[in-house]
Amino acid sequence: MAVKTLEDLFHETLKDIYYAEKKLVKTLPKMAKKATAPELKHAIQGHLKETETHVKRIEQIFEGMGKRAVAKKCEALEGLIKETDEVTAEIEDKETLDSAIISSAQTVEHYEIARYGTLSAWAHELGMDDAAGLLEATLEEEKAADKKLSGLAEEQVNHRAAA
Amino acid sequence: MAVKTLEDLFHETLKDIYYAEKKLVKTLPKMAKKATAPELKHAIQGHLKETETHVKRIEQIFEGMGKRAVAKKCEALEGLIKETDEVTAEIEDKETLDSAIISSAQTVEHYEIARYGTLSAWAHELGMDDAAGLLEATLEEEKAADKKLSGLAEEQVNHRAAA
Repeated sequence: MAVKTLEDLFHETLKDIYYAEKKLVKTLPKMAKKATAPELKHAIQGHLKETETHVKRIEQIFEGMGKRAVAKKCEALEGLIKETDEVTAEIEDKETLDSAIISSAQTVEHYEIARYGTLSAWAHELGMDDAAGLLEATLEEEKAADKKLSGLAEEQVNHRAAA
Repeated sequence: MAVKTLEDLFHETLKDIYYAEKKLVKTLPKMAKKATAPELKHAIQGHLKETETHVKRIEQIFEGMGKRAVAKKCEALEGLIKETDEVTAEIEDKETLDSAIISSAQTVEHYEIARYGTLSAWAHELGMDDAAGLLEATLEEEKAADKKLSGLAEEQVNHRAAA
């Protein structure tokens, strides 16, 4: 479709992150299954619950705009997942695999942090206050998830991988 | 190749970000050309200079490890660029295009922030202090570039797109 206004761009980008979040609902259980450290499995499962909420929030925003919730293939997330699959397939050591899973999960978190940061700025600019509030709530959860993964890596998982 | 240790994983991930940085040296001039706002063009050109330094720092790290500098196709960055090309091709309004360029550039910055954060943590864990220092220097520049883009978007570009 032709994008002519910032509102059109917001709408198109919402479709992109909607695809990404729905794909993550399917992908995170696979990542949790691959993980060895129980605390890492637990962190990923916890983030899955949050991700399900993020999907619902996006659906609320579509509804507030009077639009149907539609997902548009997110090439960036597809690339991130492809890279994750390739890297994890090459790893023979379980502790090293956990480090790689955290690393990949953080590239996904940062993709979402970038997207939600942009979407909430646009929502403010467009006077869509309800949408901005929902997007900021998700943004804070993505940042917290990223920080949690950094903590797990630095305090536990990387030590084991380097041991 | 089979990854057996954290050092192997560090090495493989270094190849990935080396590919990404070299690809960005080619991609950023195209983004600068598409941008309309002079301050956005200028910001992208400034980041191109930094990116050239990032490439050299990675080559220094390969050298410090006694390894040849080799790039490995980074599927994540390919996905981010594909998404950028698709979105910008759909946009008919110049101000909206600038907002989209900033948005895409920030997804790339965040990919790099995630990667450099991980690589510097691994370098510390592996006792590679020189590498860690180089990686942290780049990490700080990526964070600053991201912040600069947020400022440009919120103070100037988004207003014009929404006007």
